[in-house]
Amino acid sequence: VSLRVFVGPRVNDGVLEAVRAGGAEPVSDASKAEAIVWLDHDPAELRPVLTDRVRWVQLPWAGVEQWMSAGVIDDERLWTCASEAYGDSVAEHVVALMLAGRRRIHAAARATSWDTSNGGQPLFGATIVVVGTGSIGKGVARLLGPWAMTFVGVSRSGRPVDGFTRVVPVGELRSVLPDADVVVVAAPSTPDTAGLIGAAELDAMAEDAWLVNVARGALIDTDALVAALAAGSIAGAALDVTDPEPLPDGHPLWSEPRALITPHRANFGPAADAEMHGLFARQIRRWIAGEELSGRVDPARGY
Amino acid sequence: VSLRVFVGPRVNDGVLEAVRAGGAEPVSDASKAEAIVWLDHDPAELRPVLTDRVRWVQLPWAGVEQWMSAGVIDDERLWTCASEAYGDSVAEHVVALMLAGRRRIHAAARATSWDTSNGGQPLFGATIVVVGTGSIGKGVARLLGPWAMTFVGVSRSGRPVDGFTRVVPVGELRSVLPDADVVVVAAPSTPDTAGLIGAAELDAMAEDAWLVNVARGALIDTDALVAALAAGSIAGAALDVTDPEPLPDGHPLWSEPRALITPHRANFGPAADAEMHGLFARQIRRWIAGEELSGRVDPARGY
Repeated sequence: VSLRVFVGPRVNDGVLEAVRAGGAEPVSDASKAEAIVWLDHDPAELRPVLTDRVRWVQLPWAGVEQWMSAGVIDDERLWTCASEAYGDSVAEHVVALMLAGRRRIHAAARATSWDTSNGGQPLFGATIVVVGTGSIGKGVARLLGPWAMTFVGVSRSGRPVDGFTRVVPVGELRSVLPDADVVVVAAPSTPDTAGLIGAAELDAMAEDAWLVNVARGALIDTDALVAALAAGSIAGAALDVTDPEPLPDGHPLWSEPRALITPHRANFGPAADAEMHGLFARQIRRWIAGEELSGRVDPARGY
Repeated sequence: VSLRVFVGPRVNDGVLEAVRAGGAEPVSDASKAEAIVWLDHDPAELRPVLTDRVRWVQLPWAGVEQWMSAGVIDDERLWTCASEAYGDSVAEHVVALMLAGRRRIHAAARATSWDTSNGGQPLFGATIVVVGTGSIGKGVARLLGPWAMTFVGVSRSGRPVDGFTRVVPVGELRSVLPDADVVVVAAPSTPDTAGLIGAAELDAMAEDAWLVNVARGALIDTDALVAALAAGSIAGAALDVTDPEPLPDGHPLWSEPRALITPHRANFGPAADAEMHGLFARQIRRWIAGEELSGRVDPARGY
């Protein structure tokens, strides 16, 4: 057998099956494993099983900021996150939130009488600024292929990415915001991206533009957003993630007519499990074949 | 000049421009016109200008049931409706409503605290039964081309239609309902289609299925729908049209947690005007070129 994999911290039959489907052998003794598939939030439990023999750790989420700040992720082995498995479901949620905002579904859901005064605007043909050019942004562009839209990506490097009309470096973020019908935040949470969307960025957005966040709450300055929504300087914000999260009862965003909050549900349920198991099997196959794995974490970069 | 067109009942500069763009001459005296572009709801005003000279009337909506029941539509000339111009905007609204239902955006919009108990289901890969295989259904299939979905059309004839996985005749409606994740009503309102979705059809739907109506309220038996929603025998209903319409204050659908109502806003605003003007110009060009026009109304069929 070419690869022994420890699945932890608890046994999960679906994942064990995925390990076997990928061509590896699941082992119940972590000290015999060359690879670990880890299914929990908590980095602390992982440390004791990280022997020198372990060459690769597959983490269960798209974001790895907890693991980075806990100092678990090191240069001694390969670390991969599960961003590939989240792309499609989160991308679909982005489309749902963009359509809800543009077509005022959030307002219709709250109405208790027939009010035709505001019909909203189509998403078809719109210009979307996507902060982050990873699997979520690419997934949105792929799902909306027939919608004649313009996708402007914002990334560290500004390098061209398939599916995006153009990509600019993050230093030019503010210059592309005024043209956006929707600004989608889909970038990793790192010290560099904390508060990336603040008062100045909100101010640069058009009055009829929506802000969508499916990344992490920390990328948006919540107080600045609350002020922008109250002032009507943007049309609305659809947030799957918030800061603080969970958003506490009584927070002004709960009663803001221009806000729509989905409680970190962009990715969910059985379909997501199936996607995750598929990812684990694919990654194991890639490892055994000596191919590049998806979701490689760069300890220096922080994601 | 090959075609004189009367635009009524009131002058509209955008439409006059579209008439010219199509290659025809707008005339202010209806008795000189060979064609009429009519922009109003009310059939009564049209009768006095319908001289024998008029060979073609272009109506402004996708549905023509008011005109049919008023007895204005005759066999003496060609009548066309504007279904071609409505397809894209209404199709987008169908996508917005399907995503809102599947991803529980309607419930999220009403929430005032962080509740992760219900994440909904993805639309990607779902099976959609579309009652009606006209421009709206085709538009939905086109917009969702990359979504790996199954589209089962229901039409009078059951003839295959581009974009649909398969099409069944309306007599087989009940047999295809159990497999639907979403049932979309997008068929003309005629005496034959009144109450097409009643208690038996709602009962045939799956418990996690959504019903979407962007056609006319009369196609669904409202009392049966209210009962099905209250009983939880379907997951929800997203209605852009209702019966009665407007839906009166205090109607049970306004307080039904499983209902989402958009007040006949599937098609709206400046973008729709532009689409409509484009349609008028195209239709005039087709008429002048002797080509077939879109949206031909068949007085015998009723749409």
